[in-house]
Amino acid sequence: MESSQSSSSRNESQKQTLSGEQERLIDAWWRAANYLSVGQIYLLDNPLLQEALRSEHVKPRLLGHWGTTPGLNFIYVHLNRIIKAHDLNMLFIAGPGHGAPGVIANTWLEGTYSEIYPEVSQDKEGLRRLFRQFSFPRGIPSHASPDTPGSIHEGGELGYSLAHAYGAAFDNPNLIVTCVVGDGEAETGPLATSWHGNKFLNPKTDGAVLPILHLNGFKIANPTVLARISANELASLLRGYGHHPIFVEGEDPRDMHQKMATALDNAIAEIHSIQKLSRDGGSNERPSWPMIVLRSPKGWTGPKIVDGHKSEGSWRSHQVPFSDMSRPEHLRILEEWMRSYRPSELFDVSGCLKAEIAALAPAGDRRMSANPHANGGALMRPLRLPEFSIYAVAVPEPGKVIAEATQVMGTFLRDVMRENERTRNFRVFGPDETASNRLQAIFQATDRTWNAAMTSEDDHLSPNGRVMEILSEHACQGWLEGYLLTGRHGLFSCYEAFIHIVDSMFNQHAKWLKTSREVPWRRPIASLNYLLTSHVWRQDHNGFSHQDPGFVDHVANKKADIVRIYFPPDANTLLCVTDHCLRSWDRINVIVAGKQPAPQWLDMNAAIQHCNQGSGIWAWASTDRGRDPDVIMACAGDVPTLETLAAVDLLRRHIPDLSIRVVNVVDLMTLVPKAQHSHGLTDEDFDALFSTDKPVIFAYHGYPSLIHRLVYKRRNHENMHVHGFMEEGSTTTPFDMVVRNRLDRFHLAADVIDRVPKLGDRVAYAKLAMNNKLSEHKRYIALHGIDMPEVRDWRWPPASQKHG
Amino acid sequence: MESSQSSSSRNESQKQTLSGEQERLIDAWWRAANYLSVGQIYLLDNPLLQEALRSEHVKPRLLGHWGTTPGLNFIYVHLNRIIKAHDLNMLFIAGPGHGAPGVIANTWLEGTYSEIYPEVSQDKEGLRRLFRQFSFPRGIPSHASPDTPGSIHEGGELGYSLAHAYGAAFDNPNLIVTCVVGDGEAETGPLATSWHGNKFLNPKTDGAVLPILHLNGFKIANPTVLARISANELASLLRGYGHHPIFVEGEDPRDMHQKMATALDNAIAEIHSIQKLSRDGGSNERPSWPMIVLRSPKGWTGPKIVDGHKSEGSWRSHQVPFSDMSRPEHLRILEEWMRSYRPSELFDVSGCLKAEIAALAPAGDRRMSANPHANGGALMRPLRLPEFSIYAVAVPEPGKVIAEATQVMGTFLRDVMRENERTRNFRVFGPDETASNRLQAIFQATDRTWNAAMTSEDDHLSPNGRVMEILSEHACQGWLEGYLLTGRHGLFSCYEAFIHIVDSMFNQHAKWLKTSREVPWRRPIASLNYLLTSHVWRQDHNGFSHQDPGFVDHVANKKADIVRIYFPPDANTLLCVTDHCLRSWDRINVIVAGKQPAPQWLDMNAAIQHCNQGSGIWAWASTDRGRDPDVIMACAGDVPTLETLAAVDLLRRHIPDLSIRVVNVVDLMTLVPKAQHSHGLTDEDFDALFSTDKPVIFAYHGYPSLIHRLVYKRRNHENMHVHGFMEEGSTTTPFDMVVRNRLDRFHLAADVIDRVPKLGDRVAYAKLAMNNKLSEHKRYIALHGIDMPEVRDWRWPPASQKHG
Repeated sequence: MESSQSSSSRNESQKQTLSGEQERLIDAWWRAANYLSVGQIYLLDNPLLQEALRSEHVKPRLLGHWGTTPGLNFIYVHLNRIIKAHDLNMLFIAGPGHGAPGVIANTWLEGTYSEIYPEVSQDKEGLRRLFRQFSFPRGIPSHASPDTPGSIHEGGELGYSLAHAYGAAFDNPNLIVTCVVGDGEAETGPLATSWHGNKFLNPKTDGAVLPILHLNGFKIANPTVLARISANELASLLRGYGHHPIFVEGEDPRDMHQKMATALDNAIAEIHSIQKLSRDGGSNERPSWPMIVLRSPKGWTGPKIVDGHKSEGSWRSHQVPFSDMSRPEHLRILEEWMRSYRPSELFDVSGCLKAEIAALAPAGDRRMSANPHANGGALMRPLRLPEFSIYAVAVPEPGKVIAEATQVMGTFLRDVMRENERTRNFRVFGPDETASNRLQAIFQATDRTWNAAMTSEDDHLSPNGRVMEILSEHACQGWLEGYLLTGRHGLFSCYEAFIHIVDSMFNQHAKWLKTSREVPWRRPIASLNYLLTSHVWRQDHNGFSHQDPGFVDHVANKKADIVRIYFPPDANTLLCVTDHCLRSWDRINVIVAGKQPAPQWLDMNAAIQHCNQGSGIWAWASTDRGRDPDVIMACAGDVPTLETLAAVDLLRRHIPDLSIRVVNVVDLMTLVPKAQHSHGLTDEDFDALFSTDKPVIFAYHGYPSLIHRLVYKRRNHENMHVHGFMEEGSTTTPFDMVVRNRLDRFHLAADVIDRVPKLGDRVAYAKLAMNNKLSEHKRYIALHGIDMPEVRDWRWPPASQKHG
Repeated sequence: MESSQSSSSRNESQKQTLSGEQERLIDAWWRAANYLSVGQIYLLDNPLLQEALRSEHVKPRLLGHWGTTPGLNFIYVHLNRIIKAHDLNMLFIAGPGHGAPGVIANTWLEGTYSEIYPEVSQDKEGLRRLFRQFSFPRGIPSHASPDTPGSIHEGGELGYSLAHAYGAAFDNPNLIVTCVVGDGEAETGPLATSWHGNKFLNPKTDGAVLPILHLNGFKIANPTVLARISANELASLLRGYGHHPIFVEGEDPRDMHQKMATALDNAIAEIHSIQKLSRDGGSNERPSWPMIVLRSPKGWTGPKIVDGHKSEGSWRSHQVPFSDMSRPEHLRILEEWMRSYRPSELFDVSGCLKAEIAALAPAGDRRMSANPHANGGALMRPLRLPEFSIYAVAVPEPGKVIAEATQVMGTFLRDVMRENERTRNFRVFGPDETASNRLQAIFQATDRTWNAAMTSEDDHLSPNGRVMEILSEHACQGWLEGYLLTGRHGLFSCYEAFIHIVDSMFNQHAKWLKTSREVPWRRPIASLNYLLTSHVWRQDHNGFSHQDPGFVDHVANKKADIVRIYFPPDANTLLCVTDHCLRSWDRINVIVAGKQPAPQWLDMNAAIQHCNQGSGIWAWASTDRGRDPDVIMACAGDVPTLETLAAVDLLRRHIPDLSIRVVNVVDLMTLVPKAQHSHGLTDEDFDALFSTDKPVIFAYHGYPSLIHRLVYKRRNHENMHVHGFMEEGSTTTPFDMVVRNRLDRFHLAADVIDRVPKLGDRVAYAKLAMNNKLSEHKRYIALHGIDMPEVRDWRWPPASQKHG
């Protein structure tokens, strides 16, 4: 348990990077950080061990993770040395987020913690509070979280640290993002592909990422894969990922201090040399970036043996190495362990860190715990947005003009890209689908980011590109999160079905945002914006495996003030919604919109008004002329809107005197009661749209249950009959997809007919007509493989309107 | 477009692996497969080009993927040669699932397709149907799917091919699973970590996986990362993954045939040598398994130039290289392209494949399209299951005994492991959490699978282990799917929050199961069983980032006949549910159960009866004595059940004459109407439990909206008041977690008091008591950091019951 005494294996003749005095002080900081870490995990009181340790000084429930912590502390103090030596601007990302006791200890030693939380002062009482609050009810979590100064990375689910690091480094040429990757986390898929981030990093205009792979050898109960493959295999793997690995391996602290200092000197020198070469115009080749592999014992400096079992260097030190303080033996081990750090050499009697040690910390914003990039909202500048209405599709009357909504959105995004080219704070992310999603106008303004080899046939690739495409939704999401959390803006476009790949990352980000709002010093960051397209109704190539509209259900489970869901029915509403989302902050906005040619309904003025309301009556499509309608036909989503209007057309022709009100919903959250969501309609406004007693045939883009769930508290909810995706998918025609799920015009019209009793004897005839049409459709596609012209070429307004 | 004529670069003096005749026939098969692939993408009729091609012979909508297909066809024919040469038992997994035209073409050439689908016969009419059905409405999808013979891998979302391959190889010592990994797919996280599967493969008792990384260079619109890093980096990466890469690179067909044949000879020789060494007891070292890197042009043998742009060897050939058949130039290119394969040399005039070419196919089950492992249900043997009741916790009366439910389940699983040790068809999967989830009894019967380096401190690691632990939920899920799809059994235990990581994989498997049911020749496979534990209510270490009960919401969106969701409230019900799930087939079962010490409610007889009903009245906990109750207190989940009973206790003491009925729900699907789910209660049975008019205070484990959604059509749904997770999480005590989400006994009791008007003037007093208790709780945990003894040590039955 001695942390810096044994150095038998040390070669004294070797030239040392650190002077004896430097080494002594660095070791002292490390001991201080380790001491504070153990204190946080174990102690309620007696923080300086000024009395003999008694069981009442120990927390009644011991919760925390020691195993990874001393390694993080070791890295942290060495980074501080190199920051000071080169006046570096460095951000720290701790992949092993459960090492929070270490991260927090260092922020306290640097003074940042007490500056932000004055009650956790730099004295004995502050220490007591620091220890007590950790993993304590109504205290702070046992992993890095939004209330940890200097952190942009929640220590929750593992796998995203390195993607966050790249996201933070993009467009921050003077920043070095040091990212500690735990060897447990390294086994996850998202982390395993994140190493390729270096093919998307421009040494000229982006910052550097310095990965430190921390091999402490064990997960909860297992060894880790990367710690148990041969040294050759590991080096080969990391070189294959495009890195130059520098190994720091051992356990003797003095020896390790020297090795780590040398390694960091070399790594920083390589980074500077790469950047200089590239920025002086010397090379366009992708460099081999340095990285460090730190192999150190799990629970390093912790008790060697507990209860007869090996603890340091074993999976047994993953969490709390021992508990049950009713056993005097345990109390003794704890006290010896903590005293092995020699606290009286580190803190004065009042609990203040000794000046010579405190002097190791960088000054002001150079402290990693105070790096402004970790509070990105404080750096964020609003985007310069062109006036979106100039991209409007001219819609002289509803339904006559055909346009591709996302293509129009692309022209707006192109100019957003141009307007913010100088500040370099906007990027678009997607898994190789930007053009497939018809946003190709963006490529008039910028390229796809690419820093690997290129050929003459490549399309819009460049190291300077601002469109980030890799076939990994995880990487796209992780990069975007890192980019946003450091104060920039972005949009993620994705096939609707496959956005489920990042369900869990969405969760973590939503939780980060919710918690951040309760942390007063965190400034709001730009919203995370999703465009979900190539959606369930138009997967003509791809079939059932590409058909899932359930991401919005997942989103709707999160806190109402964090999430927004939009279904713009055409191009102009999509423009309006996009502009709104790009201006918002601290939210997750989901926009679902199609990319296929489709009728346009609203001119720009009408679109703005409709989007501002969030949902509203489309009088031009209704036949109720302001009277009480017989039925309300509601719709949300582009395809359901089209089918609803086609159904209105059918009904108009078959039952001319039926009074129909059409309601379109753009902002799904308007359906939720006002008390639960700020976008929710008041009950009066809701009833004015949906009535209190009329049947509502609601054509919805996704799973019907979401609508039922949102309107559950509304007066007329018993009368809501929702058509949506019934999990009936296949490779088929667009119209056949809606037929299979009973979302098509014929099924909608038939449902209306069923629900309006006063229709009397015309019911039978009209229903028969609908059924005939459905049979005709089936025969037609079986024969021709395409939709019958009647549905494919259908246009609003119906002829009958003229004299309707 | 010539496929086998140019061979300028060929070194004739070099020793050739293939004789000239072999090469000629292999090339002929390849041309036939390519011809059939193009035919499927393009043609409606004129399948043998016996007339000049006219536009009416071409499909009106062209949907499919050409780019990857010729490479797959090339691989397939070469695999056939090596299968025949060594009588190999080989399963084929096509990661690039959109290469289905190729996969299907080969299954037709092998005869399997026509055996299974006689209408798609091996003649001209069969060819016409083969072409027409592809990506045609009511035909077959454009990617490999359950109706593709020989396939266990849906060509939908990318990333899971290699994990599926390992899953298939486990415990199949004589099987070689050849897995083509596309260079697009290789960028995904799940695939990037799947390479490490070789650290979990035992050369003695498992089969071999032969990965073929197919570098065709492009995704939809971008180059691929692995195709654009240096040859050195790529080789280094693959060696780092533990493989010996064999490179096959070029585009001249004759040259490539020789190279591929040599590469496969070498790869199979290495596999056999590794297996022999290991099986003869010669080596326990992890071998470096061979793999092949095939670098060939995208859209190989397709048109070189279309509309003035490069097509073969470019991203432009990713899907359909050209369409718009109204342009005569396009029709000409298509005809030339197809004729370049010289169909008249391949098929006789009746459309039958020429005998000398057909003879290349392996016989019977050796055909990859007929490999029995690809129809795993046909091989599946039911598990031998010990009588689960012998593991029962003795529960002489409800609430007195404390046990850890998952620990008890572990003893059952231990013996399931033992009973099936001989047949080696059961494994347990989890991300390093088997012991953390308290299933450690399993380690009495087996170890953790591990084939990397070991040390003396390692806990239950062995190459023979049957517990698969890697810190990748993706790998666990992928392995398990591959294992199930090849006819075996398994269980995946996972922290509840992090199972969202595989939301999207769950989707794909659910869709596979749904579609498989419509494919008559596919036999049912064992169900995919999840145990979700370390659940939202007991994340005492981990806090908000580990708190999410939404996976079941995601599951509930899928087709009712595929999914089951269970909330056993104690150990005996968990045993009963586990036994049921392990006996079921073609389903996805989700079991949510806690691992913490908790009161036991039902003895085994009662547990069996309760689980058989799925939900039922707990008369022993109710105070209504069979009369009409004032209120119904329903619960689903272990923690909600505990809080409900504690609330009953409180109400009993404060309002002794209140008549309460307690209903516990184990099988969530009983709430759904019978018409929608086979487990659903009839309306009569539902009303008998929940009444038609009484208030129901429903304490539910997850998000309340799911309950509302399931009971939406029930008569009494307006009276359901659901308490559940309100997305209020933190690192805190167990009881504080339920308080924050109003799921605790005091909030439940208060809600009952609010809903039962007849209580009159006792309301105020009882409500005050509940509020006082909540305040007391808050003060207590702030001071002590643990829950107050009154809630921590609370036990049923309440004293008042004795004279109640």
